[in-house]
Amino acid sequence: MLALTILGNNSAIPAFDRLPTAQVLQTQEEAYLIDCGEGTQMQMAKYKIRRSKINNIFISHLHGDHFYGLPGVITSMSLMGRTQDLHLYAPAPLEKILELLIEVSGTHLSYRLYFHPLTEEKEIMNDSKLSVTCFRTQHRIECWGFTFREKKNPRKINADKIRSFDIPASYYEQLQKGEDYITKKGTIIRNTEVTLAATAPKSYCYCADTIYDESLVEKAKGVDLLYHETTYLKDNSQKATERFHSTTIQAASIAEKAGVKKLLIGHFSAKYELLDDFLTEATSVFPNTELALQGSCYPI
Amino acid sequence: MLALTILGNNSAIPAFDRLPTAQVLQTQEEAYLIDCGEGTQMQMAKYKIRRSKINNIFISHLHGDHFYGLPGVITSMSLMGRTQDLHLYAPAPLEKILELLIEVSGTHLSYRLYFHPLTEEKEIMNDSKLSVTCFRTQHRIECWGFTFREKKNPRKINADKIRSFDIPASYYEQLQKGEDYITKKGTIIRNTEVTLAATAPKSYCYCADTIYDESLVEKAKGVDLLYHETTYLKDNSQKATERFHSTTIQAASIAEKAGVKKLLIGHFSAKYELLDDFLTEATSVFPNTELALQGSCYPI
Repeated sequence: MLALTILGNNSAIPAFDRLPTAQVLQTQEEAYLIDCGEGTQMQMAKYKIRRSKINNIFISHLHGDHFYGLPGVITSMSLMGRTQDLHLYAPAPLEKILELLIEVSGTHLSYRLYFHPLTEEKEIMNDSKLSVTCFRTQHRIECWGFTFREKKNPRKINADKIRSFDIPASYYEQLQKGEDYITKKGTIIRNTEVTLAATAPKSYCYCADTIYDESLVEKAKGVDLLYHETTYLKDNSQKATERFHSTTIQAASIAEKAGVKKLLIGHFSAKYELLDDFLTEATSVFPNTELALQGSCYPI
Repeated sequence: MLALTILGNNSAIPAFDRLPTAQVLQTQEEAYLIDCGEGTQMQMAKYKIRRSKINNIFISHLHGDHFYGLPGVITSMSLMGRTQDLHLYAPAPLEKILELLIEVSGTHLSYRLYFHPLTEEKEIMNDSKLSVTCFRTQHRIECWGFTFREKKNPRKINADKIRSFDIPASYYEQLQKGEDYITKKGTIIRNTEVTLAATAPKSYCYCADTIYDESLVEKAKGVDLLYHETTYLKDNSQKATERFHSTTIQAASIAEKAGVKKLLIGHFSAKYELLDDFLTEATSVFPNTELALQGSCYPI
């Protein structure tokens, strides 16, 4: 099970109580922080995201609205006595900035912070539940998107069927992996007799900030959820292009071409107080679109 | 007229909707930002502090809870098209950090940012309304307090009296400065006949983060308002000392020894949800104490 919680959904300048970009992707066990605009640590407290579940942070690019909340998150984790390692995946120059901030404040982090500079399109993280790859997006400065893919889920034990066989509970994990069971008498109990198909692994593609770029279609191909920025409504497509951002129609068009299951749009310009038109425009091209709303959780 | 608005009143970790330290001192014309914890730009929007009135920012020290909101303030001012100069008074290493942040984000500020490193105890700013001096406080790292002193206020025109004399309105400014008026016939109209005494110039002393330090008594001598941190209640005086912070009783004791008119206490530890005991303890030593509450404005 994957679920995405939006902590901030605005572009450069915070406005109308909308904060800059930050998202948390959650599995049952872990939380993965994606971008970290100013105020992220307050939003995590507000929306009950447990910091201790965060072991990996992904920063797309070094515009302030995507990482000015990071020093606060890192520092507070230390002040709260964290001991687990923390892994940070981000454009290389961020390492120097963090080192400087830690140095001038006389801080000794209570935990180990591993910095993984983004250098090429590849798998950057792989734990028991997820594989994460990064890819370049076209923005004013170096910018990266991330695709999160769940690993194969375990098959489900069929509680109705399994009772009729004498299979020890200690063997259930192997059944979930798809193995058959052989009784002491040598009878083979086929896996499919006592288990149900696993839930299909889910995928989430985060396109960060980007100009309209059809090369993203390939990156987002068939994912369950695509987040694509829509800084502007369609009538501002020239401004969007000049500033290396996208409009509603452009985001929806990428979603449609990539055949994703659902599109989530955000990174709204501070010039818009109401967001209704974003949804109306995007759904005209790609019906299964939702607005990324602060505090909302989107199951994937 | 001086008035102080509290934007953030908590210590290191934001908690219970209390944000890290930030204050705005306002005259009729200008706003002076004192420290700038994470979230300051959102708090300015919330409490209607106009950014265009801010031309001077004072940063006491480089612990994150006193300046992690600064990059956002600086960047947003530029995104909003600011053209006025901005002056920043802060410990020297901050300049490098800001340069790096501006560089990696590919930002070209729309205005000139003048960095004034704090190097010794002296007057650091002097405009038409205020003089500001800085002084060292004893904290874990280099830390500065600031004293803001209003300049001599103009005398007030006595509307009841001035009607009986034939003084041109264009001369009022000189009357306000204390000059006499000489009529065409050579009669001297004494200034005191047509004006009232000026309001006494006010003063505000901001002690930043500090251990209990009696040398502050001299710095705060007789000011109208003293802000002194109270990270802890009195039963935590050992912890306060270890961490170079102060308790309620210590802050109130400095206020009392310095003979200030009023004491404002803040920088509360995240371990305290309720603040009542801070006020009870401090007023037991110095009755004219108030809690620094977020969004509250304290006329000086």
